Amino acid sequence: MNEENLSKEELNLHKKYMRQAITQAKKAYKLDEVPIGCVIVYEGKVIGRGYNRRNTDKTTLGHAEITAIKKASKYMGDWRLEDCSIYVTLEPCQMCAGAIVQARIPNVIIGSMNPKAGCAGSIINLLNMAEFNHQCKVIRGVLKEDCSNMLTEFFKELRSKKKARKEESCN
Amino acid sequence: MNEENLSKEELNLHKKYMRQAITQAKKAYKLDEVPIGCVIVYEGKVIGRGYNRRNTDKTTLGHAEITAIKKASKYMGDWRLEDCSIYVTLEPCQMCAGAIVQARIPNVIIGSMNPKAGCAGSIINLLNMAEFNHQCKVIRGVLKEDCSNMLTEFFKELRSKKKARKEESCN
Repeated sequence: MNEENLSKEELNLHKKYMRQAITQAKKAYKLDEVPIGCVIVYEGKVIGRGYNRRNTDKTTLGHAEITAIKKASKYMGDWRLEDCSIYVTLEPCQMCAGAIVQARIPNVIIGSMNPKAGCAGSIINLLNMAEFNHQCKVIRGVLKEDCSNMLTEFFKELRSKKKARKEESCN
Repeated sequence: MNEENLSKEELNLHKKYMRQAITQAKKAYKLDEVPIGCVIVYEGKVIGRGYNRRNTDKTTLGHAEITAIKKASKYMGDWRLEDCSIYVTLEPCQMCAGAIVQARIPNVIIGSMNPKAGCAGSIINLLNMAEFNHQCKVIRGVLKEDCSNMLTEFFKELRSKKKARKEESCN
């Protein structure tokens, strides 16, 4: 489902939480990490937050969604997050999409898609495979410009920084 | 690749580490968790171990492979585990197969396959998709009887326990 198919009220609610996921992504940006953020919501309350810290923490498990799922599981006292919604600024990778299915999260709301590596519809859709014991309802494109502009700006800045460093080392 | 295609020497080496993964799985068994174990090897040294603790720790991230990857990343000081081999007693799920690809582990050695939910050849093969930026070399069937017998025994025992509890509550 795309955001165009939602009622204004539903969309506003999703935008509210996606903004919180963007706030998380900006924390990654400040650490020079690819800006990706995530929140998990249960009964209107944010019970898990996360942002990309893969390079900072030097671990594969430093993705935004993994951190948020870890925190939400702790809050719920359960590995099943059955009545939760997860908001991610970028389409999840194979590990994070897999973790979402394993946690049995029913609702996944995505900002911008990731055509090169995304596993919620781009390369493959792990969130909705009949062969698994859980399928998610997926909404794509909520605040997609904000989410993708943040990434474009990040990579542009990264290229400038790299160029500046290169020029500096040549002088 | 199946274990039948390996030289005796290679197979013996893989069996040595698979036995260590089985030792991990037995720790899960003792906790009444589905017995699945994992080790990660770098230059002949085990640098990460893990066993299923999903119910005990009440977290989706309690799978054997996730714990082992976390520990191996810590040892290596890097989210990339590029020269490592991972040994798992059971074919990984979508989350763990995804984590293996994200960690760029080149070699994956599997004990028994999981036809109902495995993502290294059964339902799908996430470890070897041309669309991703990493593909793994996979060996299947190393000590498969030991690995699958352990699971069969576990589920048989679980059913007996459940039956006994039911009969007790009826008396």
